[in-house]
Amino acid sequence: MTLNRLDTPAAVIDISRMENNIFLMQKRMREFGVKFRPHVKTTKCVEVVRAQIAAGANGITVSTLKEAEEFFAAGVVDILYAVGVDPSKLPRAMALKRKGCDLKLVVDNATAAVAVAQFACQHNVDFEIWIEVDTDGHRSGITPEEDALLEVGRILRDAKINVGGVMTHAGSSYELNTPEALQALAEQERAGCVRAAQRLREIDVPCAGVSVGSTPTAIATQNLDGVTEVRAGVYVLFDLVMYNVGVCACDDIALSVLTTVIGHQPEKAWAILDAGWMAMSRDRGTSKQSHDFGYGLPCTLDGTPLSDYVLSGANQEHGILSPIKLESTKESDAQDVRTRFPIGTKLRIFPNHACATGAQFPEYHALAATGELTIWRRFHGW
Amino acid sequence: MTLNRLDTPAAVIDISRMENNIFLMQKRMREFGVKFRPHVKTTKCVEVVRAQIAAGANGITVSTLKEAEEFFAAGVVDILYAVGVDPSKLPRAMALKRKGCDLKLVVDNATAAVAVAQFACQHNVDFEIWIEVDTDGHRSGITPEEDALLEVGRILRDAKINVGGVMTHAGSSYELNTPEALQALAEQERAGCVRAAQRLREIDVPCAGVSVGSTPTAIATQNLDGVTEVRAGVYVLFDLVMYNVGVCACDDIALSVLTTVIGHQPEKAWAILDAGWMAMSRDRGTSKQSHDFGYGLPCTLDGTPLSDYVLSGANQEHGILSPIKLESTKESDAQDVRTRFPIGTKLRIFPNHACATGAQFPEYHALAATGELTIWRRFHGW
Repeated sequence: MTLNRLDTPAAVIDISRMENNIFLMQKRMREFGVKFRPHVKTTKCVEVVRAQIAAGANGITVSTLKEAEEFFAAGVVDILYAVGVDPSKLPRAMALKRKGCDLKLVVDNATAAVAVAQFACQHNVDFEIWIEVDTDGHRSGITPEEDALLEVGRILRDAKINVGGVMTHAGSSYELNTPEALQALAEQERAGCVRAAQRLREIDVPCAGVSVGSTPTAIATQNLDGVTEVRAGVYVLFDLVMYNVGVCACDDIALSVLTTVIGHQPEKAWAILDAGWMAMSRDRGTSKQSHDFGYGLPCTLDGTPLSDYVLSGANQEHGILSPIKLESTKESDAQDVRTRFPIGTKLRIFPNHACATGAQFPEYHALAATGELTIWRRFHGW
Repeated sequence: MTLNRLDTPAAVIDISRMENNIFLMQKRMREFGVKFRPHVKTTKCVEVVRAQIAAGANGITVSTLKEAEEFFAAGVVDILYAVGVDPSKLPRAMALKRKGCDLKLVVDNATAAVAVAQFACQHNVDFEIWIEVDTDGHRSGITPEEDALLEVGRILRDAKINVGGVMTHAGSSYELNTPEALQALAEQERAGCVRAAQRLREIDVPCAGVSVGSTPTAIATQNLDGVTEVRAGVYVLFDLVMYNVGVCACDDIALSVLTTVIGHQPEKAWAILDAGWMAMSRDRGTSKQSHDFGYGLPCTLDGTPLSDYVLSGANQEHGILSPIKLESTKESDAQDVRTRFPIGTKLRIFPNHACATGAQFPEYHALAATGELTIWRRFHGW
């Protein structure tokens, strides 16, 4: 099977680009002397994660227990479940621990800490807990100077729960787009997390680990003093949001959606594609960035961007490809769309957000430099 | 298993509401004396489609060949594949026909018509083709007065292809929100499609069928003269977009995402939920409507809307529940979010768009009036 004969829409991973992305991030972290724990929620794909581990990753980060279960079954033992644990999910977490999974759970509040401590005591299970720190106000976690941090630390310490460390995720990095701003946020993320660890150690909570990361801050950081590990997810494939943030080039984007031209609206200079939002996802992450790529950036079959066109609209199974300068849509352009993109033309679309687009597909088609395609299964659900 | 013990996030279908939605649409179409062909892309679920057929549906509409294959395997024979056919998909379509599926294909251009005619002749396969008509300029199809309509008709007629009829979808109805505007668009959809059929019949293209529909126009229409069948999809579950369009009440929405409170940011009056965009989808369809519901409208476990709160933000596995009047976020409110929604609280979230939210889940949990839950599988992919 070759790319031009593949049924469309299909999610294509360029293996060379992916391996280059993996290599560069791992090299960077090795040079800093810290461990790297990739976030596998981006791909939910065993083949991708094996490549990350082969390159030197120390364990993985997951966003659901389903991911933990699937990757443990595939042989990964060291797993950080990086979403504050819902106490009603503790039996599932315990089942994984008892099978030998080195599963680390996260809490960011006293109620969850008490629930974990009680459950651990009742069931005699040795949970390792990490405390989530909020270093940029974008989501979850306890800010480093809050009393609640020490309260959670004391609850776990007094219950003799193994506290593995503190972790934070400066997700607001996605809203930035200059090296200076990214470096400043990376330093804020580092300093806040190190400070939280220090405060916990002062009250005799061991807290050996200090885990930070997001793709933009991992790439921008100049200093990781006190940090023991970095986490990042989307770096493995990159996407148009990351391109706008400024942490990758277009040529680094390893995920694209293969699609076919199925119609035209010549008066509007539209080509209709068989990749709608069901294929691209509804993610419009570039809509508020410096360059709005609509539902994606079209490319030729060999991956060359068509920078004068955009996937401007999407219905469930229809995408609308249209010229960027709408004011220039004249009869000449209208002719052009039919001759330039005849029915049956195959295109590839770079997505706004690799995590969201991948989630629309049950599998990736992994494209080798030789042109050979291999199916890599992707799971979904919780 | 009961709702309050179900692992979260989960996609819950309220069976009574779904059955009422099915009953009312089917009754309406029966009163008009037209056939009803539900669009099953909304749920991709055999149990839902069986309920639609049991209520009197005549065949189904699909948006992918995968849907056609899955529902044919489940016993549905009469299937309209309502996306302009990519000629490279004809072998898959032929395989279905040869197994006995009464599969109808759609074309809206001469190139596809020629490709279908050549393929049908070469392989001696008796494709039934419907011609797609554009009645509102929102996507695909040929407008009723265009020469291209007759050109496509002649190509099919001369190749002795069985033309089943004309079909249109006034998808721009999603942008309206008054009964008058919806009625006017429904009439435009009807009149345009009937006119296209008339023009084709005048050149001896048989074209017996006239198929129209979208959920809003199907509900608004006052006149279906000349129409033989109506199609609609999202009516079976409804959602917040349809609520804003004005074609359902909140109490008609049959799909919700069950979620658990896993954290708080008390200073911001946020509760953090374990339903992020991976559960809700990235669909922000209400963002440009009269009422913006963020990523969804939260409800209590019994389905009562919490109209003073909204799912204001979503990361992959984190949802942010916040009060609607942000200016009133005071210390009193901040206390309130923790006491009102303690860790472990289960909520249900009505989605913006039932098709997009359903697609995030491998299964629905169907909730009977007795409180009993049944798993209904949902497939994905192409």
